[in-house]
Amino acid sequence: MSSLALSFDLGNLSCMVTPLLFIDGKSGFVDGKPEAYLSLNDRGLNYGHGLFETMRLSAGQLPLWSYHRQRLSVGAASLGIALDRPRLDAYLQQALEAFPADGMIKLLLTAGVGPRGYRHQSQSACYVLQYFPLPPVADPTAVRLQLCEYTLPHNERLAGIKHLNRLDQVLAAAELDEGFDGLLLDVDGNVVEALSSNVFLFDGQRWITPVLDLCGVAGVMRRLLCEDLIPRLGQQVVIKPVALASFINAREVFVCNSVRGIQPVRELQGRARWLTESNELQGFEAEKIIDQLVHAYPCFAA
Amino acid sequence: MSSLALSFDLGNLSCMVTPLLFIDGKSGFVDGKPEAYLSLNDRGLNYGHGLFETMRLSAGQLPLWSYHRQRLSVGAASLGIALDRPRLDAYLQQALEAFPADGMIKLLLTAGVGPRGYRHQSQSACYVLQYFPLPPVADPTAVRLQLCEYTLPHNERLAGIKHLNRLDQVLAAAELDEGFDGLLLDVDGNVVEALSSNVFLFDGQRWITPVLDLCGVAGVMRRLLCEDLIPRLGQQVVIKPVALASFINAREVFVCNSVRGIQPVRELQGRARWLTESNELQGFEAEKIIDQLVHAYPCFAA
Repeated sequence: MSSLALSFDLGNLSCMVTPLLFIDGKSGFVDGKPEAYLSLNDRGLNYGHGLFETMRLSAGQLPLWSYHRQRLSVGAASLGIALDRPRLDAYLQQALEAFPADGMIKLLLTAGVGPRGYRHQSQSACYVLQYFPLPPVADPTAVRLQLCEYTLPHNERLAGIKHLNRLDQVLAAAELDEGFDGLLLDVDGNVVEALSSNVFLFDGQRWITPVLDLCGVAGVMRRLLCEDLIPRLGQQVVIKPVALASFINAREVFVCNSVRGIQPVRELQGRARWLTESNELQGFEAEKIIDQLVHAYPCFAA
Repeated sequence: MSSLALSFDLGNLSCMVTPLLFIDGKSGFVDGKPEAYLSLNDRGLNYGHGLFETMRLSAGQLPLWSYHRQRLSVGAASLGIALDRPRLDAYLQQALEAFPADGMIKLLLTAGVGPRGYRHQSQSACYVLQYFPLPPVADPTAVRLQLCEYTLPHNERLAGIKHLNRLDQVLAAAELDEGFDGLLLDVDGNVVEALSSNVFLFDGQRWITPVLDLCGVAGVMRRLLCEDLIPRLGQQVVIKPVALASFINAREVFVCNSVRGIQPVRELQGRARWLTESNELQGFEAEKIIDQLVHAYPCFAA
């Protein structure tokens, strides 16, 4: 077991040695202890009984932490996981001091170790924090989408939250060609989201993003845009069902998440093209929103 | 980390020491090594990208192994996991030699350790084997069912297989009163299964069990009954959609799984009662099937 060296009490040494231990994402903090492993009886592993947050880390800070924390709280309540805020804050502070200053942090909150069986015995939750460098981008200027055949089932109890039952995304990802992100429809054929980001489209007058009360993950960057940045520009944003035809006919499309910020969409493979080599965002409405985001959070500059 | 003592090479000592290590279910074999932990980067934990089988262990054998193995193969193909049969057989043999002779074995097959992100890189699968004693039974003669409000969403790609995305069952289990098993309907209101077993009902002429092509887990005991034991009795069994009203009006109902065998259902709380204190299976058709099962597999005697 390669974590053997980590299992001795590191005490105050941890700040000194952790950058080497954590930089490859193999190790992290599990309930405040440097570890690379989790119990076989953790309910996150056995049932996906848990949540995660993937957060941009910039200059030793998590710029969108309050949004992440709120979504985590909502998800924990939905899944019957008792989130201990002071513990979480302490573990997070410890990780921020130990991890490199820039990149991303993945937070995993599981229902913890319990006896076998679906019934939850209200044991302590488990808190995992891992550092990862920012993922590489196929094209820094824009993403290319491919329509997935796999469609998202409806589940109003689980819609919106970032739980650990992610076979929908795994099956959709398995369809994708190299260099493409996936566009996911629900079982009714409406546009929901991209594989790990939310979508916004501009119809010539206003911004539209799909309603996520039956499926999909309600991203924190989506929330920031809807509640703050787009209204602040004096523009309108509407949350509603989005038919594939409306998406294809949109004037502009972008995807967004809390790690990469906003990325314009170049095309939907074989169906639509919004950005050519010559028009790179010239006169695009999305440029104003990107400027606004970078003004508020400079780490999201391309 | 409490598995520290396990991580040294046990070599041929393992047979001697493992009963002590394994009987509490905290430890198991991970890819053939005695371990209590799994990597933080395992896709089973992060996405539920994996499968499990919970198997009755009797006199050092797994009586329904061929059925379990076939379901596992189907599931692995569905999830893009490369199941290495010789490896699995070797790990299983090792576990059977090390574990106590009676109880149950939980087999977890995950997509293994991979880089962060939904895309599967075809890394080696991970094989986990754990021993557990048989779970206690609230009432050895019959189970009591409670109708769950949570309904199972449809997903034809995942229906039938025993994957690790089990929040449906976790949410349904959270509704249950002490001493009750859950009866699960799908989003259309049809009966699908109990929380961790399949259901059969007798309409006075034939046995009926719900079709599972849109949701539910296709249990191996269900398969044994449908393909072998019930036809061998000269009785008819039909796999079809089952409305809740048909279920309530059934003459007899039982649940079955590969750990507990067949258990008659006493009641559906507040809606139906099939067994009273006075009629305990007297003249019930189910008794013939139970006799047939115990004849073929004596470990399933009550």
